[in-house]
Amino acid sequence: MFKRALFLAAVLAAPVWAAPVAPDAAAVATATKLRDQGVASDTGYQLLESLTTEVGQRLAGTEAEARGRDWAAKKMQALGFTNVRIEEFKVPLWVRGVETAEVTAPTPQRLVVTALGHSGATPAAGIEAEVVRFASFDDLVAAPAGSLNGKIAFLDHYMKPTQDGSSYGAFGAVRFVGPSIAASKGAIGVVIRSLGTNDARVAHTGVTDWENALPAVPVTGGSKVVGAKIAPIPAGALSVPDGDLMRQLFARGGPVRMKLVLTPAFKGDGVSGNVIGEIPGRSAPDEIVLIGGHLDSWDLGTGAVDDGAGVVIAMAAAKLIKAQAPQGPRRTVRVVLFGAEEIGGMGGDDYGKRHAGEKHVLAMESDFGADRIWKITSRVADTGIPTVRAMQRVLAPLGINPTTDNANGGGSDLAPIGPTVGMLTLHQDGTHYFDLHHTPDDTFDKVDPAQLAQNVAAYAVTTWLAADSDVAFGPAPAPKK
Amino acid sequence: MFKRALFLAAVLAAPVWAAPVAPDAAAVATATKLRDQGVASDTGYQLLESLTTEVGQRLAGTEAEARGRDWAAKKMQALGFTNVRIEEFKVPLWVRGVETAEVTAPTPQRLVVTALGHSGATPAAGIEAEVVRFASFDDLVAAPAGSLNGKIAFLDHYMKPTQDGSSYGAFGAVRFVGPSIAASKGAIGVVIRSLGTNDARVAHTGVTDWENALPAVPVTGGSKVVGAKIAPIPAGALSVPDGDLMRQLFARGGPVRMKLVLTPAFKGDGVSGNVIGEIPGRSAPDEIVLIGGHLDSWDLGTGAVDDGAGVVIAMAAAKLIKAQAPQGPRRTVRVVLFGAEEIGGMGGDDYGKRHAGEKHVLAMESDFGADRIWKITSRVADTGIPTVRAMQRVLAPLGINPTTDNANGGGSDLAPIGPTVGMLTLHQDGTHYFDLHHTPDDTFDKVDPAQLAQNVAAYAVTTWLAADSDVAFGPAPAPKK
Repeated sequence: MFKRALFLAAVLAAPVWAAPVAPDAAAVATATKLRDQGVASDTGYQLLESLTTEVGQRLAGTEAEARGRDWAAKKMQALGFTNVRIEEFKVPLWVRGVETAEVTAPTPQRLVVTALGHSGATPAAGIEAEVVRFASFDDLVAAPAGSLNGKIAFLDHYMKPTQDGSSYGAFGAVRFVGPSIAASKGAIGVVIRSLGTNDARVAHTGVTDWENALPAVPVTGGSKVVGAKIAPIPAGALSVPDGDLMRQLFARGGPVRMKLVLTPAFKGDGVSGNVIGEIPGRSAPDEIVLIGGHLDSWDLGTGAVDDGAGVVIAMAAAKLIKAQAPQGPRRTVRVVLFGAEEIGGMGGDDYGKRHAGEKHVLAMESDFGADRIWKITSRVADTGIPTVRAMQRVLAPLGINPTTDNANGGGSDLAPIGPTVGMLTLHQDGTHYFDLHHTPDDTFDKVDPAQLAQNVAAYAVTTWLAADSDVAFGPAPAPKK
Repeated sequence: MFKRALFLAAVLAAPVWAAPVAPDAAAVATATKLRDQGVASDTGYQLLESLTTEVGQRLAGTEAEARGRDWAAKKMQALGFTNVRIEEFKVPLWVRGVETAEVTAPTPQRLVVTALGHSGATPAAGIEAEVVRFASFDDLVAAPAGSLNGKIAFLDHYMKPTQDGSSYGAFGAVRFVGPSIAASKGAIGVVIRSLGTNDARVAHTGVTDWENALPAVPVTGGSKVVGAKIAPIPAGALSVPDGDLMRQLFARGGPVRMKLVLTPAFKGDGVSGNVIGEIPGRSAPDEIVLIGGHLDSWDLGTGAVDDGAGVVIAMAAAKLIKAQAPQGPRRTVRVVLFGAEEIGGMGGDDYGKRHAGEKHVLAMESDFGADRIWKITSRVADTGIPTVRAMQRVLAPLGINPTTDNANGGGSDLAPIGPTVGMLTLHQDGTHYFDLHHTPDDTFDKVDPAQLAQNVAAYAVTTWLAADSDVAFGPAPAPKK
């Protein structure tokens, strides 16, 4: 019965697939060429080698991120993009200090730790206290007010790999708001089990939100509210194997104590910025198909997978289109490399403010690594659906599942350009993404050139078919909740 | 023709397999029981969890290694071993300090580095110098005297995984004597590409020999000879991905400069020791079958794979024999857990001196990780061969290849007990061993309980058949060169 219902749904959907209104045969033929050129091209891989070798990590607000902008602007010029520009904005500058953690009881054990983004600092000599373990985020939420006074909280969880990355959503609250909730209950420090999915002994950083947990619970103990934030306490991530070790120590039943030294600091304002370049449209240059990634990275690796990959996928895809159609597609292809995504999507916010009045037709962001794309979903107006189907048909030979999901599109940097713009998501395989995400292991050697090239091909095809078109992709339906 | 020749060789070898002189059917039946109990037992895994959780790293000469000895002696008592004792000896105590490395030109890049064992120290502020890359050990050897004056040498190589671990032999000189050779040519510091075989961003430590390279080349530049040693210079290992990055930077052709901070120090004498326990022989207690591993570890991980695994394999195998034969086998089974193996085989040396006059019949050491055993080789007198064949037949169902190689047996801690003692080697699969070896990643979570249990089964079978026997396994033939 269930299978029969599915079959009927497929039959009902079939007319849309069988008789697309657009695009025309010439546009599809060009898309097919772009696909085949994309998988054979090493432009993305060479750009990524250059970015990670010649610039390296690009922490938001730092001089390293500025060097990344210079690199990107120069490469865009060299690739033949026009209107290349950098749009700067201010961000809070937070930098890492000393970071060590050790179990002091029941037995000495050194742990691998790294400060979470926007963590508070311990004194230089560190803090030493009893540790309270929470097996889940819900257990932390349920802990009584004041119950963590003078203690260090260890936030454990059970994140495992998922192809769609959904376990990051399921367990992410541990990092996003766990530290501020622990602080609100009196904790003097927090260590989380890294949001990681393999057994490498590296810790996963990532930003922590000291604002949005505030209404949830009354603030107790020594914790303070400063303005709209809870005052950050020292908050670090332990490597997954160290999380296992903590579990084993707690399983023995006695008290566990920890010494924690984390001395990051806010250094006032830093400068971040977005880098923009275009392939101007040949007949409707004011209509924009936006593709991009984010240029900033965390500081532990070289930002190859997060999000050097997204940066070079967008650049290489636009370059293929430029080479294939020197006069440009009908509309403008705009490549936007966002700054300061990792510390709160600030590049997306700045872009949204500056470019609010422009005619964005469709937008896509690559920010889930360098592994192959396995499905395409959309969030476009009905008028755009036939073009999405055409994209899916051209890309099916690359192992990319067509779907009829039209409530799933967008990226963290795209939300600010407005809810009415059409969005596509080219879903990358995330099975191994959280092995590397926000760790020292996010380096160039982790990227497979063939999988990266498949991404370039998919972005070239989708970008071309949207840009060489006159159909409307917006207003988009509401995103899936 | 080639296949036919192989077939004939097998036929010619067959009589040895078909008509073993020993052991008798009862001994084989017991061995078969021990095999099946071994693969079903979690004793080794539980011991390893305990050692790595309750003790952790066990650097030679430190208080942590002493806690390891106490742990081992208590566990041996609890397992019912007799004559449990600790035999202490002095070792040089070397401890790690601050360790950072960064490329300063052509672009800033932070590198993951760790000091090699017995490295010299930089000033606290570090050293900064031009780096000279050597693509191979031979290139370093060929460098002219004085050519590294004032420079940092980067010793690159191309080690890849091998099942038998032979690539460690092929490329090991880079670590063993590369730093002293570089020092002899005037280098003020050395970084090697880690002797590692995966892409994890962890550095592989390991001891460096400042003595045995000396005769090779005249000492030049600022380097000094002190006694029989070249004075240690700062010597570190970069992670494999950082080695790749260095290669990429050198491929651009310009000068590469590095700042290196390594502040380890020798702290005078420390105490190490061997831990010994026995299952006394029921009728020939003075004849000894020795099995063991080494108790010390490097300090970066928790010494789970190197060599906590060997420690617990020997302990669990002896425990199985004790349970199966409460009166003991004919000969004594002696479990020896060596101290200070990592810094130069000092536990083996001490054991050899103290126990030189005793009747060692056969010896085996497990020191190649926790993965499955895939073949057995021997180095025993002709009289021992039929028993080796019987061991191989009992173990073949565990996927362990029988071989007729009788020139391959022993371990680094066994050499000092004399060349005449029979030796077996139960070869573990080393394909992934050098992913973890001497790194922070050497932790309990890397151990597969089923593979560890297979090891326990194999040691129980071989130990039992050697101990419940009266055949001579020595004098052993010369080892294979």
